[in-house]
Amino acid sequence: MRTITIKPKAITHNLNQVKQRAPQSKVLAMVKSNAYGHGVAAVLPALQQADGIGVATLTEALEARKLGWNKTIGLVEGAFTADEWQQAIEQDISCVIHHGPQLEWALQNIPPANSATRVVWLKYNTGMNRLGFNAEGVLLAAKRLHEAGYQLILTTHFANADDHDHQLNAMQIQRFSDVLSTLQSTISPDIKGSLCNSAGIVNFPEHHYDWVRPGIILYGSSPVTDQSAQELNLQAAMDFSAQIIALQNVSANDAIGYGSRWQAQQDTRTALVSVGYGDGYPRVISDDAYVTVIDASSNQSYRCPVIGRVAMDMIVVDISSAPESLAIDSKVVLWGDAPRVDEIAGHAGTISYELLCRLSIRPNRVLA
Amino acid sequence: MRTITIKPKAITHNLNQVKQRAPQSKVLAMVKSNAYGHGVAAVLPALQQADGIGVATLTEALEARKLGWNKTIGLVEGAFTADEWQQAIEQDISCVIHHGPQLEWALQNIPPANSATRVVWLKYNTGMNRLGFNAEGVLLAAKRLHEAGYQLILTTHFANADDHDHQLNAMQIQRFSDVLSTLQSTISPDIKGSLCNSAGIVNFPEHHYDWVRPGIILYGSSPVTDQSAQELNLQAAMDFSAQIIALQNVSANDAIGYGSRWQAQQDTRTALVSVGYGDGYPRVISDDAYVTVIDASSNQSYRCPVIGRVAMDMIVVDISSAPESLAIDSKVVLWGDAPRVDEIAGHAGTISYELLCRLSIRPNRVLA
Repeated sequence: MRTITIKPKAITHNLNQVKQRAPQSKVLAMVKSNAYGHGVAAVLPALQQADGIGVATLTEALEARKLGWNKTIGLVEGAFTADEWQQAIEQDISCVIHHGPQLEWALQNIPPANSATRVVWLKYNTGMNRLGFNAEGVLLAAKRLHEAGYQLILTTHFANADDHDHQLNAMQIQRFSDVLSTLQSTISPDIKGSLCNSAGIVNFPEHHYDWVRPGIILYGSSPVTDQSAQELNLQAAMDFSAQIIALQNVSANDAIGYGSRWQAQQDTRTALVSVGYGDGYPRVISDDAYVTVIDASSNQSYRCPVIGRVAMDMIVVDISSAPESLAIDSKVVLWGDAPRVDEIAGHAGTISYELLCRLSIRPNRVLA
Repeated sequence: MRTITIKPKAITHNLNQVKQRAPQSKVLAMVKSNAYGHGVAAVLPALQQADGIGVATLTEALEARKLGWNKTIGLVEGAFTADEWQQAIEQDISCVIHHGPQLEWALQNIPPANSATRVVWLKYNTGMNRLGFNAEGVLLAAKRLHEAGYQLILTTHFANADDHDHQLNAMQIQRFSDVLSTLQSTISPDIKGSLCNSAGIVNFPEHHYDWVRPGIILYGSSPVTDQSAQELNLQAAMDFSAQIIALQNVSANDAIGYGSRWQAQQDTRTALVSVGYGDGYPRVISDDAYVTVIDASSNQSYRCPVIGRVAMDMIVVDISSAPESLAIDSKVVLWGDAPRVDEIAGHAGTISYELLCRLSIRPNRVLA
């Protein structure tokens, strides 16, 4: 059995960490990509103290409404078509507007005065060069939207906020601050600002503005390069585990698995674990990757290296450190409290966000 | 909209390619890990001419029965517990037996004479060093199972069948052949054999034995290192596509996306595409990776490089090769006929199997 256990209390704890870091700001909790793989339905009840949630697609927004979320929903890439804009109005979704066509849809189809869709997140491209208007475009769009009766939140996105000292950060912050001041002085003092994602919340406390937009930090991973999740007092919101399904003794010089990638230096006790890339465990990992095997009879934990190529349905681990009495069916933690998903992501040459999002539908899912 | 389109006709075509390559063998079509990410429900109707299907977990087996598959189901890692063995009997599942505990469960709980669970796939470890008995253990297990009334299929798994000339292949084939001969001469001439996965089917036509076990080949990817899917006359069973959601002009020297990883050498027309690792597109890819953009107005296709870091919800592509009139909403093929998923897997430092299995639930799924 592969099991993904979601811990709502950990998510609430992490949300409270965000609120302590940004006490003056409203919180738009990011739940896009099925709540970073955790499952939107499992996560929403833990986010009741957030002021709103952020999603990437209209489908995700509609699902959250169906699940009963009745506060702000921010659609962070905005409507993809004029028809989606109309649907956003019908479901009271607040949209990002980041390019000309979206601006025209908004000006041609104005929501009722009391609609949440009257709140628009106007995207300014300060250096990510992905979504958003340039400074001149933002000023023009803001003027037209304000005149049409929209309330505005100026927003932008950091390219390198995980790296506190990256030179682009100061430039993005300055550009954002300058344009927001201009909008407030020339169009309306009521225009709000939203700058910080998870990394920005941690690294730039003096620039939190009106709304912060935490994502990965809610799920217990570190968003920055120089502090671990533990140092940030974050709790892992997911425990991903499997079980031992067979025990083997491998002789010195025997190779294991596809490509005969791992060769035993000595006679080695190994265990087969019922998980693979078909579940979402990464196929390519370094030799430092390990799992935690739990011996139920003693409740002791053992750190066991993953050896050989990760296959679709199984991995092999070296259980030399565990007692010979270790039973088939023993629980194997792939990530959770130890190892943290951040560690496995490092061994896989990527970031935790990707491992969490790319879990497949095969593992059994439960709530803690 | 992200869309995964499954093509049942391609799967049936690929199955026919297998049957032409192995005309004397029965076919156990592998549908584990949700049919390599294609969706079991979508795939089973295309596999009606297979003699059986193979799955990795009892849950997958039960799902296939529920979907109406009434022929052989092979559980390729066998039962994980004595209780699972009992459930296998109740649902007429044929199990692999690869280690001592499974052998004991089978001997202590013998299914009715007409049950498909009376057919056992006895696993011999010929060099993969993962699942299976050694030669001595296989002989003992086979004797006991035969005496208890089981029908046996000796099976093993290649470690390096994708590489025709790997030295381990000949050794594994020889060991398998020797033990099967011994079983047939000392226990029963009715004992069957199953050696070849997709790569074995292509590379070792003289060793197909009674059952072949095609997997990735059914879905249109090449299982071997020296021949492409096209050279093997395989059709892609999945078309994974998204759409352009915004157009941008980036100036020379501007960096794009997270980590400012890609920098424009010259003024460049770019498009934002609504797909990311939150959908299952790999986050880490080489600069050679490309998508195919389709201009609906002319029905022309353009090969466009992926630039900058793949994000959770979007990628940026260089559309310099496409006409200026290219519309928002244009279809973007991530993999399918071009590029093939094998190409993208190469750019991601992995194999197609992983990309297919690690698709998330976010993309919309349709049948062609």
